[in-house]
Amino acid sequence: MARKTLNIGMVGYGFMGRAHSNAYRTVGNFFDLAYQPVLKAVAARNAEKAAAFAETWGYESIEDDWRRLVEREDIDAIDICTPNDLHAEIAIAAAGAGKMVLCEKPLARTAAEALPMVEAVEKAGVPNLVWYNYRRVPAVSFIKQIVASGKLGKIFHYRSKFLQDWTISPDVPQGGAGTWRLDVGAAGSGVTGDLLAHCIDGAIWINGSIDTLTAMTETFVKQRRNALSGEVQAVGIDDAAAVLTRFANGSLGTFESTRYARGHKALYTLEINGEHGSLAWDLHDLNRVQWFDHRVESALRGWSSILVTDGDHPYLGRWWVPGLSIGYEHSFVHTVADFIEGLSSGKPAAPTFRDALETTQICDAIIESGRSGAWVSAGA
Amino acid sequence: MARKTLNIGMVGYGFMGRAHSNAYRTVGNFFDLAYQPVLKAVAARNAEKAAAFAETWGYESIEDDWRRLVEREDIDAIDICTPNDLHAEIAIAAAGAGKMVLCEKPLARTAAEALPMVEAVEKAGVPNLVWYNYRRVPAVSFIKQIVASGKLGKIFHYRSKFLQDWTISPDVPQGGAGTWRLDVGAAGSGVTGDLLAHCIDGAIWINGSIDTLTAMTETFVKQRRNALSGEVQAVGIDDAAAVLTRFANGSLGTFESTRYARGHKALYTLEINGEHGSLAWDLHDLNRVQWFDHRVESALRGWSSILVTDGDHPYLGRWWVPGLSIGYEHSFVHTVADFIEGLSSGKPAAPTFRDALETTQICDAIIESGRSGAWVSAGA
Amino acid sequence: MARKTLNIGMVGYGFMGRAHSNAYRTVGNFFDLAYQPVLKAVAARNAEKAAAFAETWGYESIEDDWRRLVEREDIDAIDICTPNDLHAEIAIAAAGAGKMVLCEKPLARTAAEALPMVEAVEKAGVPNLVWYNYRRVPAVSFIKQIVASGKLGKIFHYRSKFLQDWTISPDVPQGGAGTWRLDVGAAGSGVTGDLLAHCIDGAIWINGSIDTLTAMTETFVKQRRNALSGEVQAVGIDDAAAVLTRFANGSLGTFESTRYARGHKALYTLEINGEHGSLAWDLHDLNRVQWFDHRVESALRGWSSILVTDGDHPYLGRWWVPGLSIGYEHSFVHTVADFIEGLSSGKPAAPTFRDALETTQICDAIIESGRSGAWVSAGA
Amino acid sequence: MARKTLNIGMVGYGFMGRAHSNAYRTVGNFFDLAYQPVLKAVAARNAEKAAAFAETWGYESIEDDWRRLVEREDIDAIDICTPNDLHAEIAIAAAGAGKMVLCEKPLARTAAEALPMVEAVEKAGVPNLVWYNYRRVPAVSFIKQIVASGKLGKIFHYRSKFLQDWTISPDVPQGGAGTWRLDVGAAGSGVTGDLLAHCIDGAIWINGSIDTLTAMTETFVKQRRNALSGEVQAVGIDDAAAVLTRFANGSLGTFESTRYARGHKALYTLEINGEHGSLAWDLHDLNRVQWFDHRVESALRGWSSILVTDGDHPYLGRWWVPGLSIGYEHSFVHTVADFIEGLSSGKPAAPTFRDALETTQICDAIIESGRSGAWVSAGA
Repeated sequence: MARKTLNIGMVGYGFMGRAHSNAYRTVGNFFDLAYQPVLKAVAARNAEKAAAFAETWGYESIEDDWRRLVEREDIDAIDICTPNDLHAEIAIAAAGAGKMVLCEKPLARTAAEALPMVEAVEKAGVPNLVWYNYRRVPAVSFIKQIVASGKLGKIFHYRSKFLQDWTISPDVPQGGAGTWRLDVGAAGSGVTGDLLAHCIDGAIWINGSIDTLTAMTETFVKQRRNALSGEVQAVGIDDAAAVLTRFANGSLGTFESTRYARGHKALYTLEINGEHGSLAWDLHDLNRVQWFDHRVESALRGWSSILVTDGDHPYLGRWWVPGLSIGYEHSFVHTVADFIEGLSSGKPAAPTFRDALETTQICDAIIESGRSGAWVSAGA
Repeated sequence: MARKTLNIGMVGYGFMGRAHSNAYRTVGNFFDLAYQPVLKAVAARNAEKAAAFAETWGYESIEDDWRRLVEREDIDAIDICTPNDLHAEIAIAAAGAGKMVLCEKPLARTAAEALPMVEAVEKAGVPNLVWYNYRRVPAVSFIKQIVASGKLGKIFHYRSKFLQDWTISPDVPQGGAGTWRLDVGAAGSGVTGDLLAHCIDGAIWINGSIDTLTAMTETFVKQRRNALSGEVQAVGIDDAAAVLTRFANGSLGTFESTRYARGHKALYTLEINGEHGSLAWDLHDLNRVQWFDHRVESALRGWSSILVTDGDHPYLGRWWVPGLSIGYEHSFVHTVADFIEGLSSGKPAAPTFRDALETTQICDAIIESGRSGAWVSAGA
Repeated sequence: MARKTLNIGMVGYGFMGRAHSNAYRTVGNFFDLAYQPVLKAVAARNAEKAAAFAETWGYESIEDDWRRLVEREDIDAIDICTPNDLHAEIAIAAAGAGKMVLCEKPLARTAAEALPMVEAVEKAGVPNLVWYNYRRVPAVSFIKQIVASGKLGKIFHYRSKFLQDWTISPDVPQGGAGTWRLDVGAAGSGVTGDLLAHCIDGAIWINGSIDTLTAMTETFVKQRRNALSGEVQAVGIDDAAAVLTRFANGSLGTFESTRYARGHKALYTLEINGEHGSLAWDLHDLNRVQWFDHRVESALRGWSSILVTDGDHPYLGRWWVPGLSIGYEHSFVHTVADFIEGLSSGKPAAPTFRDALETTQICDAIIESGRSGAWVSAGA
Repeated sequence: MARKTLNIGMVGYGFMGRAHSNAYRTVGNFFDLAYQPVLKAVAARNAEKAAAFAETWGYESIEDDWRRLVEREDIDAIDICTPNDLHAEIAIAAAGAGKMVLCEKPLARTAAEALPMVEAVEKAGVPNLVWYNYRRVPAVSFIKQIVASGKLGKIFHYRSKFLQDWTISPDVPQGGAGTWRLDVGAAGSGVTGDLLAHCIDGAIWINGSIDTLTAMTETFVKQRRNALSGEVQAVGIDDAAAVLTRFANGSLGTFESTRYARGHKALYTLEINGEHGSLAWDLHDLNRVQWFDHRVESALRGWSSILVTDGDHPYLGRWWVPGLSIGYEHSFVHTVADFIEGLSSGKPAAPTFRDALETTQICDAIIESGRSGAWVSAGA
């Protein structure tokens, strides 16, 4: 079967640029899809770095301005891997040019900034997606399947954390290439948009909408040197956030994120407790699901550690054999596979811009409640 | 060395009556103490059950009214193992009679009820203690030692949970012998006083005072049959509670308790993250401490699972040899050992009634914030 | 119900003397039995230490020669807690005097030494037991139950290890109170009789008889100072042993024990693999059974970690509530409970001397094969 | 820097064909190397399947006979991914044609068959490698580094297992595409060459040569249908093998492999115990090393779970950021990277054919001892 080509125009060449590029290059070797991504061009202001990136990954050409990329007729899809403050402008322009748009998460710095993006892609009628990649870790997808099957019955609790420890030293700067996530201007918020956003996206996907929440936020290090200007400036981001929520289904949620939890590198965790069972997962044991089934006979009940590597687990039939695990980057490969599947089937892969707007609204609510101390409505 | 006797008068014969009785009987076989507890008498309204209990445990006599026990001259210490609603009256009477008082936790249903108890024992000048037994699980005591040594540096986070799953069925009644913990009249609150109180006690002990908090509480099952009257009545307790706190030392706390978390029987967990390291523990792996030491050379850093069974771990030199573990009931044995040690040394074992009042004040604040949704001051 | 007394005469006051004494003192508080053990007398050559031991544990009297203990009419049962080289003489004398005999494991240094012991108790018709206590760790008893139920189907593999690390330093002496286990004269063998014997006892109990075996043994430290004489002498014990076996049921066994495995304090492990499932346990997670059930639907299969603390788990109905664990010494309490139960029911608790002889025969075969390198028949 | 091309000719298109092809395609995106592998041609008798494979992976051409591939002048390296019985003929022909040769493990069915292969590549002077991929799982490479650094001191024990459970049903056939590993003619042996060979390779690499061994082997299912002919035939392979070894450095080894261990999909485990510390790893927790450091202060000693995902861990600097894991296939990418590095540096990547011959000799010794029951010399 001859595959159609899907010409990708990438904006940015950082960590996410690599993860996405790898996904485009690899997906066709493992998934049988109607479209084959082609790495057409990468755009970045630093032409030298863009050229090196293009050579490493096999991009056919480079542009030193994303605007030119958006204008090119040979590009089908624009992939936005820039810092958050550029998402909106690029996405709106790309949609306006009739391109499909794939945007790194969070959709934007705030819901106010994100809403026009949603409107732009919907008005243009172009396929669109936000890269909340952890949904497509097979273990997480499997949890979604089990919950959706009703096996857990009524849900009582959802808890999720994302813990890191890399900004504890006050010598870590803010701003610039490696540390723009600490600069509130570029990032919009701290752990809330960067890390909690993943937890929120997963929670909504698995457990449904959040009605109300209250939050505590904190900035432990009050001033940091700016990596670009060298000036010591006030830190505007949240270093840590903890949130209590009430879901629409009546269950209670607890969320926490920080970059000050020694020993945790990228510990995204989630757990859901229902009437008949519970499920848990964490990113440090990427391919394991913890499953408690209350319907097992009493004396034999326990938490099962399911090694999610079998052919009947999500996505795994495409990879190796039972017991052999896959890694972080595969979540991006799966995202591309599903995005392309959505192009073929007409049922768009989630989260679309519209879906992801809800997560950004909740992030806004967290920041707001962190300031006011009050319970706030989580929705629009 | 001849030991002096410490004549115990026990009020109650339930689960805690057994745990305490075992502690009194066992402590002298493993600890070298100046006093030997003697099981002098047990008091309970149900004389038949009291007699059976006395025979099983070797109490020399029984009383069918705790008041008579308090009046007996041959009793040195009154141990209160009744439902929470009786703590205050008994403790105040015992102190008034010049007895030492050991009271099961929580001290009382509310701080308002607890305060006169504190005043009574202090006025009488009698030794007093509240049985927050989990402090004296060796792993927990060891965590306290490490934190107190300063090894963790500045503290950023404390998180603690106590999860159970035994009241999910609406057929579980409230009130009566086995289920008075579900009756708000007898218990004062639900998971807050029964389970979170342990988490709060541990947190204050290890990480210092809590300044302010906000809480979410929920009652999932709104009506239950009363086990005594048979009537279906509104449920007054909190089935679940989640709390965000700010500690006096600037760290952030998250707490949660529920009896609706399938798969968790008695999962008390705690974790503390500091600048230089982190520590974690849970009750289901009673004798293990998880320890992350950031000062280890980078590539070799990891969470160490310390099996707390060696002679240089707290209390363990009194028991077996490395690798051989102890159980739940030993925490009570250690409590008695430390209480007696406190009698000898004149440095009272903690938590005294005064110490434990703080935990009850925080429990009150949780219930209040759960109702109002507002941040509240946690202290008196 | 009035309990009959069971008057215990203890020989020895070391580690095992403590563990057994605690069991006798405690069993009646938790188990409802027809006999109440009474700590009548302890015998030991060192009268001062015996007196201290008697005071700590409440023994009514002391004897400075075990022979006098055996002769006493007020003693019902002799409990042998001496080094291995004294087991035979004491047991045979006790049986000859018509006493019940409870003997620490291994039964004797060799099968040749053990056989007359078996004959003596059988000729005298006295109740007898060997303290292979780990059978009565609830998790191990539970594994036995599951295997016996047939849930695993045909068995393919049994593997068991007992790893320690306390004799790595060549400065550890041999002989004397704390280190007689390193003296081949007192102990009979090294890790084989001390540690592997537990693994073998468990294997036979759970998986049936061993037909043939081959073994590798090693003495890493060739000379040690004798703690009594101060002389440096050749080491006669096996420091490590590894064994391959064929069971009568067609399954394969692998066994290993050593005192040179850094990081393992008392790591007794066992695992059994059958057609339909597998079970595993280790002593460092005393109250957990790992259970894999192949009959669970494919995608949800995993190893379940069963926290063996519920009322429907072996022995646990006598202790606390779900989630609250028990410790090492409880295995001895259960042994006494079952021994007494056996007195009442007429169905003797296992392993009797006869049962335990098989384990000692296998230990002999291991030592023999370790020397010859040949496969040997494991039985008598 | 312009990379030179390394033209690959692949023989076979099965599971290993995919794993190797992915490695060749991916390595240049993450590693900065002097050569860029080019997928020049794939050879297989089934032209249709070869064509499909070529399209999926981007091979430029196909050959229906490996002999033609070997003759092609545009091929630099022959990669052998066939069943074991074809390794020797292809490798010898490829070496004779002056090609580099990369051969799947085990090198051949027996050492007798493998020796001419070693001689052929050495005579031809061509770069050669055997794909013992698990050496290059970062966690395993890291263990090798630590042991080589001397941190463990004198080594006492090495133990390794490889457990699976996929052939328990007697309905699994032998022979044919998916099940040639059960056909002794195609595979040479059962678990010994397929699974234990990995354990042996790792052991020799990490702990040095094995002097002598004794083994037990078993075939649980005696007859199976041949997938090609349909005939029921005797099974010639070993279903399970267990081995005791003595290493040249004086340490003891225990090894086991089976395909009858329910619940274990591909559980390769290894553990090494030295004077000052121990290390352990298993394939189901691919990116974790368990590390016990006896030099840590006594009370804080424990097994550390090192998440091997940091920039200072082997190979990880090329991938993502701390906490984000990689998978099974990356071990092949690392193998290609090191092979190419070896071409540049002139220090060939291990294991070469010569290195891997030793593992095959040990496999032969295991099969021989499994038959004879005697200890055998493990070397040539």
